[in-house]
Amino acid sequence: MCADPFNETKTALLALGGQRVWSLMVTLFGDLAQAEGSSIEGPALSSVMAVMDVRPEAVRVALHRLRNDGWIASQKQGRTGRHALTPTSRAETLTASARIYSDPHHQVTGWQIALLEDSGIGPRDDMEKHGFIPLLPRMYLGSTDAHTPETALVLTGGTAPDWLRQQVAEHMLEVEYTALLPVLETALHALEDGTLNPLQTVVLRCLIVHNWRRIVLRHPDLPRTLLPDDWAGHKCHMAVNLLLSRFPRPPLHTILPS
Amino acid sequence: MCADPFNETKTALLALGGQRVWSLMVTLFGDLAQAEGSSIEGPALSSVMAVMDVRPEAVRVALHRLRNDGWIASQKQGRTGRHALTPTSRAETLTASARIYSDPHHQVTGWQIALLEDSGIGPRDDMEKHGFIPLLPRMYLGSTDAHTPETALVLTGGTAPDWLRQQVAEHMLEVEYTALLPVLETALHALEDGTLNPLQTVVLRCLIVHNWRRIVLRHPDLPRTLLPDDWAGHKCHMAVNLLLSRFPRPPLHTILPS
Repeated sequence: MCADPFNETKTALLALGGQRVWSLMVTLFGDLAQAEGSSIEGPALSSVMAVMDVRPEAVRVALHRLRNDGWIASQKQGRTGRHALTPTSRAETLTASARIYSDPHHQVTGWQIALLEDSGIGPRDDMEKHGFIPLLPRMYLGSTDAHTPETALVLTGGTAPDWLRQQVAEHMLEVEYTALLPVLETALHALEDGTLNPLQTVVLRCLIVHNWRRIVLRHPDLPRTLLPDDWAGHKCHMAVNLLLSRFPRPPLHTILPS
Repeated sequence: MCADPFNETKTALLALGGQRVWSLMVTLFGDLAQAEGSSIEGPALSSVMAVMDVRPEAVRVALHRLRNDGWIASQKQGRTGRHALTPTSRAETLTASARIYSDPHHQVTGWQIALLEDSGIGPRDDMEKHGFIPLLPRMYLGSTDAHTPETALVLTGGTAPDWLRQQVAEHMLEVEYTALLPVLETALHALEDGTLNPLQTVVLRCLIVHNWRRIVLRHPDLPRTLLPDDWAGHKCHMAVNLLLSRFPRPPLHTILPS
C-alpha cells in the first residue's frame, strides 16, 4: 500500500524537533487568525491539534499558558470557547509575518558595512537587533534597510566575493535550513493542488510556517547578494512560498468538525 | 650673548636621536646628489659631516660600510675622492623621495577599506607594504592609490568619523611627530631667508630631511581625511615643506672648503 503523502509530510515536519505545543499554537493563530476580530473556536482548534498528534490535555495546558502570558484571550459563547490573539500578540505577530510571509522574489539587494568605535557588549547586541550580523569585532554586515547607529562608520557594499558569502552563510543557520529543505522539496513533489481537505491544509500550513519561522526569525534579513548562490535558506524560502500559495488558508468554518 | 639660531636648530635636530653616521649620509646623498651623474667630493662631504659634529674617522667607517652595502660608489680623481649613489640606491632614493619631498597641499584625498578572506601573517605583511594600515584582524585602511589584492573585498570610504581618525592616528607614529614638530616650528621662526651660508644650508636640509624621512617612511601615506584635523604629522609635513623651500639646495661647488 502506498504511503499517504500528507501523513508522510506531516510526520517529517513534526520530526524536525522543537514542536512545543504552545509554540505550534502561536504559529497556528498567526497563520489562521491574525486579522483583527478573528478567532478560532475550541472544537476547530482541537481538530487541528489532534491531526498534529497533540492530545486534548496538552492543548488545555498550552492554552492556559498562552492566556497567562497574555498571548491568547478566550471567551465563552454558550458551550463553545473562542480563542483569539490579544492586541499585543497581534502586533508582534504582524511584525514577524512581514519576514515569515515575505516574497522571496522581492527582497532588498543592497548591503552595508557598519564599523563601531569600540566592541563593547551593548553595541553588539543592538546591532544584531537592528538586522546586522557580526563579521569581525565591531564590524557588522546588514542590508541597506538596517538601522545604523549615528556614530558608526557606514560603507555601502558592492559585489560580494564568494568567500564573504560563505562566511556570511555561517551566521545564517545553514544546518537548520539544510535539514528543512529536503522535507519541503519532498512535499512540493508529493502534494498536488486540490489533494488536501481544509483541515489537512491548515495543519500543513501550520507545520511549514512553524518550521520556517523558527529559523528565519533567528537571523537578520540579509540580501541574497551577500549569500552563496545555492544557499539553502533561499531555497527553503522559495519552497515555503510555493507551498503556501499552492495551499491557501481555507475559510475557518470549513475546518469545524461536522 | 644671543645663541646662534642655526646652531640651536642643528643641536635640537641632532638630539632627536637615531642619527647614525651612515644613515645621515644616506640622507645627504639623497638630498644633494640624487641626480644621475652627480657626486659629492671628499672634502665637501667632510665639511658637511664636520658641521654635524661627526669626526673624520667616523665618516671613513660609514663610507666603507655604504660601499660594502652597494649604496655608494667612490672614485679617485687625482688626490680627491668622489662619492656617488649607485644605480640601485639611486632608484631606491627616487622612490623614497616621492614621499619625502611630496607637496602637503597636493595629496590624495580618497580612501578605501579592504577586507581579506582570512588573517594569515602573509597577507597582513603584504597589505602594509602596499600602503594599508591594519584596523581590525584582516581589515585594512588605505588611500585609494593603495594596491588591493584581487580577492579582497574593497569598499570606498566617505566621511570618516572623528573616532576613526583618532584610531588611524594611533598607527601613524604620533609620538615621533610630536617630538619633531616643536623643533621644526622653532626653526621656522628663528631661521630667516638668506641668513645661512651654503654649508649651513646643506646641513640644515640634511638634518630636516633625515628626521622627517625616518618617520614618514615608516607608515603608509594616508589621506588627511582619515586623520585628525590637528594631526602632528601633517603639521610636520607643512613645516618641512616650508623650510626646504626657504632654504633651497645650494650648488655643490659652493660648499667646497675654500
